[in-house]
Amino acid sequence: MKLLHEDRLFPADDATRKVARQLYKQIKGLPLVSPHGHTQAAWFAKNGPFPDPATLFVQPDHYVYRMLYSQGISLDDLEIGAPVIKDPRKVWRIFAENYYLFRGTPTRLWLDYAFEELFGLHERLSAKNADHYYDTISEKLQTPEFLPRALYERFNLEVLATTDPPLDSLSDHKAIRDSGWKARILPTFRPDSVVDPDFDGFRANVVKLGELTGEDTESWAGYLRALEKTRARFKELGCTATDHGHPSARTADLSKEDAAKLYAAILKGDASAEQRELFRAQMLTEMAGMSVRDGLVMQIHPGAFRNHNRQVYQKYGRDTGADIPTPTDYVNALRPLLDRYGNEAGFTLILFTLDESAYSRELAPLAGHYPCLRLGPPWWFYDSPEGMRRFRETTTETAGFYNTVGFNDDTRAFLSIPARHDVARRMDCAYLAKLVTEHRLDEDEACEVAHDLAYNLVRRAYKL
Amino acid sequence: MKLLHEDRLFPADDATRKVARQLYKQIKGLPLVSPHGHTQAAWFAKNGPFPDPATLFVQPDHYVYRMLYSQGISLDDLEIGAPVIKDPRKVWRIFAENYYLFRGTPTRLWLDYAFEELFGLHERLSAKNADHYYDTISEKLQTPEFLPRALYERFNLEVLATTDPPLDSLSDHKAIRDSGWKARILPTFRPDSVVDPDFDGFRANVVKLGELTGEDTESWAGYLRALEKTRARFKELGCTATDHGHPSARTADLSKEDAAKLYAAILKGDASAEQRELFRAQMLTEMAGMSVRDGLVMQIHPGAFRNHNRQVYQKYGRDTGADIPTPTDYVNALRPLLDRYGNEAGFTLILFTLDESAYSRELAPLAGHYPCLRLGPPWWFYDSPEGMRRFRETTTETAGFYNTVGFNDDTRAFLSIPARHDVARRMDCAYLAKLVTEHRLDEDEACEVAHDLAYNLVRRAYKL
Amino acid sequence: MKLLHEDRLFPADDATRKVARQLYKQIKGLPLVSPHGHTQAAWFAKNGPFPDPATLFVQPDHYVYRMLYSQGISLDDLEIGAPVIKDPRKVWRIFAENYYLFRGTPTRLWLDYAFEELFGLHERLSAKNADHYYDTISEKLQTPEFLPRALYERFNLEVLATTDPPLDSLSDHKAIRDSGWKARILPTFRPDSVVDPDFDGFRANVVKLGELTGEDTESWAGYLRALEKTRARFKELGCTATDHGHPSARTADLSKEDAAKLYAAILKGDASAEQRELFRAQMLTEMAGMSVRDGLVMQIHPGAFRNHNRQVYQKYGRDTGADIPTPTDYVNALRPLLDRYGNEAGFTLILFTLDESAYSRELAPLAGHYPCLRLGPPWWFYDSPEGMRRFRETTTETAGFYNTVGFNDDTRAFLSIPARHDVARRMDCAYLAKLVTEHRLDEDEACEVAHDLAYNLVRRAYKL
Repeated sequence: MKLLHEDRLFPADDATRKVARQLYKQIKGLPLVSPHGHTQAAWFAKNGPFPDPATLFVQPDHYVYRMLYSQGISLDDLEIGAPVIKDPRKVWRIFAENYYLFRGTPTRLWLDYAFEELFGLHERLSAKNADHYYDTISEKLQTPEFLPRALYERFNLEVLATTDPPLDSLSDHKAIRDSGWKARILPTFRPDSVVDPDFDGFRANVVKLGELTGEDTESWAGYLRALEKTRARFKELGCTATDHGHPSARTADLSKEDAAKLYAAILKGDASAEQRELFRAQMLTEMAGMSVRDGLVMQIHPGAFRNHNRQVYQKYGRDTGADIPTPTDYVNALRPLLDRYGNEAGFTLILFTLDESAYSRELAPLAGHYPCLRLGPPWWFYDSPEGMRRFRETTTETAGFYNTVGFNDDTRAFLSIPARHDVARRMDCAYLAKLVTEHRLDEDEACEVAHDLAYNLVRRAYKL
Repeated sequence: MKLLHEDRLFPADDATRKVARQLYKQIKGLPLVSPHGHTQAAWFAKNGPFPDPATLFVQPDHYVYRMLYSQGISLDDLEIGAPVIKDPRKVWRIFAENYYLFRGTPTRLWLDYAFEELFGLHERLSAKNADHYYDTISEKLQTPEFLPRALYERFNLEVLATTDPPLDSLSDHKAIRDSGWKARILPTFRPDSVVDPDFDGFRANVVKLGELTGEDTESWAGYLRALEKTRARFKELGCTATDHGHPSARTADLSKEDAAKLYAAILKGDASAEQRELFRAQMLTEMAGMSVRDGLVMQIHPGAFRNHNRQVYQKYGRDTGADIPTPTDYVNALRPLLDRYGNEAGFTLILFTLDESAYSRELAPLAGHYPCLRLGPPWWFYDSPEGMRRFRETTTETAGFYNTVGFNDDTRAFLSIPARHDVARRMDCAYLAKLVTEHRLDEDEACEVAHDLAYNLVRRAYKL
Repeated sequence: MKLLHEDRLFPADDATRKVARQLYKQIKGLPLVSPHGHTQAAWFAKNGPFPDPATLFVQPDHYVYRMLYSQGISLDDLEIGAPVIKDPRKVWRIFAENYYLFRGTPTRLWLDYAFEELFGLHERLSAKNADHYYDTISEKLQTPEFLPRALYERFNLEVLATTDPPLDSLSDHKAIRDSGWKARILPTFRPDSVVDPDFDGFRANVVKLGELTGEDTESWAGYLRALEKTRARFKELGCTATDHGHPSARTADLSKEDAAKLYAAILKGDASAEQRELFRAQMLTEMAGMSVRDGLVMQIHPGAFRNHNRQVYQKYGRDTGADIPTPTDYVNALRPLLDRYGNEAGFTLILFTLDESAYSRELAPLAGHYPCLRLGPPWWFYDSPEGMRRFRETTTETAGFYNTVGFNDDTRAFLSIPARHDVARRMDCAYLAKLVTEHRLDEDEACEVAHDLAYNLVRRAYKL
């Protein structure tokens, strides 16, 4: 018995499957480029072993425990939010017993991949073999082959970007560089904590930003300079991109005076909800301007209603699986920014969405026109076979392949990285194979596109 | 010639079709569980014959006559709205002549099923054979095999829920129970007529509710008690669920004082449109609270713009085919209710939609997190092969299979029930077969899921 | 080597492909009926040769140069906006070099068709063969076989409708008629320039409309009469339809007095944005009323945010590829018009959309009920294989085939017309073939529907 079939995710009809196989064979070995994600530089700086199966697979992954929670399993029993899991075997057993809940989900796909490819487990996880799984994984995690750096190399990673707040010293990134290890682990500048007035601790963060940069962040000009200096500090450590996780894609282009007044109101702490949203909007345009000047690629990840479940948020904190997408406007929202910088040579703005109805209606038409715009790959709930298929079906005809940027694994789950890239590569080959068998694309071109989607476009878009 | 092919609705490629057949073979004989619909308890209480083909197939089914009307056929010629059809043969002939209009629609699928499986008709309905159809059906309807109870048994129904207003005496349900017939025909508590201020006769209904329950429905507390008592009365007759058909999914959680004031304004009759909407919103949360206490499963069917065609409404009344879906928000709308009851153990809230863009964006993420939430099957215009396929494709990857609740036929057309369940079972098998041939699910698991989708999940979700 | 495969766009599995081929074989030779598009009557009136490949394929087609622009190619280098291209060979070379950008797009499909079928080119366009292409096409364009009238006949066109403003003298249409040439080239009445207060030159246009018709367009009554007279003038030259390109589908039904007051405010030039939108809304209902009286079929093409890229608009003008779709409401928007005229016998209103989420939610339910409504084919960014497939999948089950109106090529690119119709016919056959192999439709019926979709429905809907 095998968990993974070599033809998985390829269309069932013989003709298309044959083409998909051919295409995949030629790209499956390409290095992985991971330009956006949430792994921790500390893992690679310290290079210590991952603790245990529950801490590795269950606790950090909201995809996993949100499903368990949705079926009535208590977050306390899963020790979510605990600094250290006290009874990891118990947590693992709960997970194993309920593994059937993940049928048909992408989580199942990458877990099976990790179990089989990394840990040599070939029988489907269940209550019955939970302990065998636990022991096998635990044991391997203590071996040198499973240390973070060894895995980075085994995964054939060429670049791995982390996501970092402006107040981070980036000491782990420095430590990696200073260690002489030849991997490319790069920071990404994610300033939400100092540009979103609704972020926990925003006011204190702004003060700290001033201290770290030696700028007077109580003034609008000083605040902007502090951000510019921090971007420069990130760039020195290899950063090529920024990322912005706002509730909406709204942008604004206020006069300098109005922006300064708005900033003062924000700092005073009595700004209205509309003013706070306007400030975030203005900051996206400021960030775009800085990108035009310093060359950092800009990413916007909008549209999540964060911490929707108030009780879960109060008890377990942020990022506990209760972030829910909302309808997201791009056409009106982005116009102020695009009016200002949309035709700038060398500026790249990568757009993501949690509202897939925007793909064919707004995002592909925008990216198929503006020189600065590129479409990020399917994100979050859409980082899945069907999501990837619909992404190609709804964007390619308008924006083509070359206004897209390859794959982002966007994960906290380091061990899922090869599996996620593998899914993306297979789904792109499946889509291309369909174009070939339907005679909408020649096979030699499909092969070139497959290489571009797997490797070239991401390097070009992120300037890697 | 045959109207139905044994492989209908299965994917065309050999490999997938073979798996679909295998899966379907194992579940096609499972009993039908119909937890939500609009058949009439009176049919089973009285057990008299259905009158004639036009009254059975054309007059009560807005899916049928809306299509005819859309092509310029007069509702008068179809005798829509007439208490008794005067010339059923004429109506039937119009329908037969225009049967080609239903090509590619689910209505055609279930009509052909009923014609062939129940009435032994094997030639496609047309102007040519309209009279032969009419005579054959008329004749059979007079036989004992076609009485409602005989059909219930022949259909292998295990449970059939009706939908009933709070002012209904449920005498038909009582009569069925008292008759000693062993079928499970259960009422569903649908309080729209006493909780929606825009419902025709709302004010009088509230008064009548007070009389029926002996409560003072002029006071907020008495009104709530009257609703609780009515729910209890429904429960005594086997009711396990409530249903709520609101224009939106909006909920509210007012203080007791504010709710009482709002109720007073509503009763006075001078509440604004916004106040009336707020009242409906508050009532959903009140109903959720009652469900937490009495265990009735809650269903919300939101998003229809009722009686869109004013002229048709004025002449022919409610439910005449001019209800049109609107964009429906869930994320913001449901938050007050979920804040209050979303994490309650034992509470079940089943969500339906007429806006399928919400499936992947809002509904699957919500149901994939909140323990109380389940996704109802594709509803109304989506109760169709493509609708069912898109439902699975857009929800499974985020919410899995186990946050869904099997099939609802939701029909007034009793004779369509086996056909509708058959379509749902076939489409689920087709979807599962695709997962199997694409190696995203093992065949033994697919088989288990097929059983769950056809039989187990609905019983569990509706506590049947 | 061939650019076009005879099975292109047909599903890959053998069974379905075989049926698709059979269906297509029977309809591929049917005459082309083009009831809506943007070719120029002057071409056929003058019947002079098309100048050169760049002027023919690149300059007039925003689908082509928007993609090039999105990848950083300058519009100046493409000589967009130039009255005459100075260096067409240079423009052609840029296009040829970047032809790979169109992989997977419908533009590629129809270009390959034109290259191979019309110009006998069989090798994929690239930098390498750019000059060979240029020379071959240039040479053929000078031959009698490539004059507009010869191409019209070669394309097997039966009707070709242009789109014309009310101030147009239609002299080219008259010239065609007077020439004795037996083609049916018909004008379409598109009054945006005199009914949309935001249209460039609106005020002057209204004055000119008065002059042309001898009516006092400074008064509401005179303005309406002037429009009626102009419609009559169009009808005399064979016009059977009107077309309306509004930012939204909003309609209104004001009293005569309120409408007259609103018109006065509009003419005065101090109307608010809301008033201007209300005026457009009112004008749609006025146009519907005129259609009820004069029998012209009405088309609404709503939902484009025009000239989104301000810099490009300022430099290169309207229609330069920066029109972006927006979410479009139909259910509320159309109600005033439908309340007034929705049940009128003989009135036809054809709806288009740039927001495909409206298909299953709003448009199919509306068209599946109202006798006047028909669904226009996939428009603009959706005029593509995937767009056509999704259109059928999301509308057929609710509205059937007979509430749709066949294909519109809607193009400025005359040479693309046969290719576009061919794509539509193939995709409809592919869809029908799937229904046949999944036993949802009998093959004889599929054949009849294929004829209807390719030929009969468009003639009926547009009264041709």
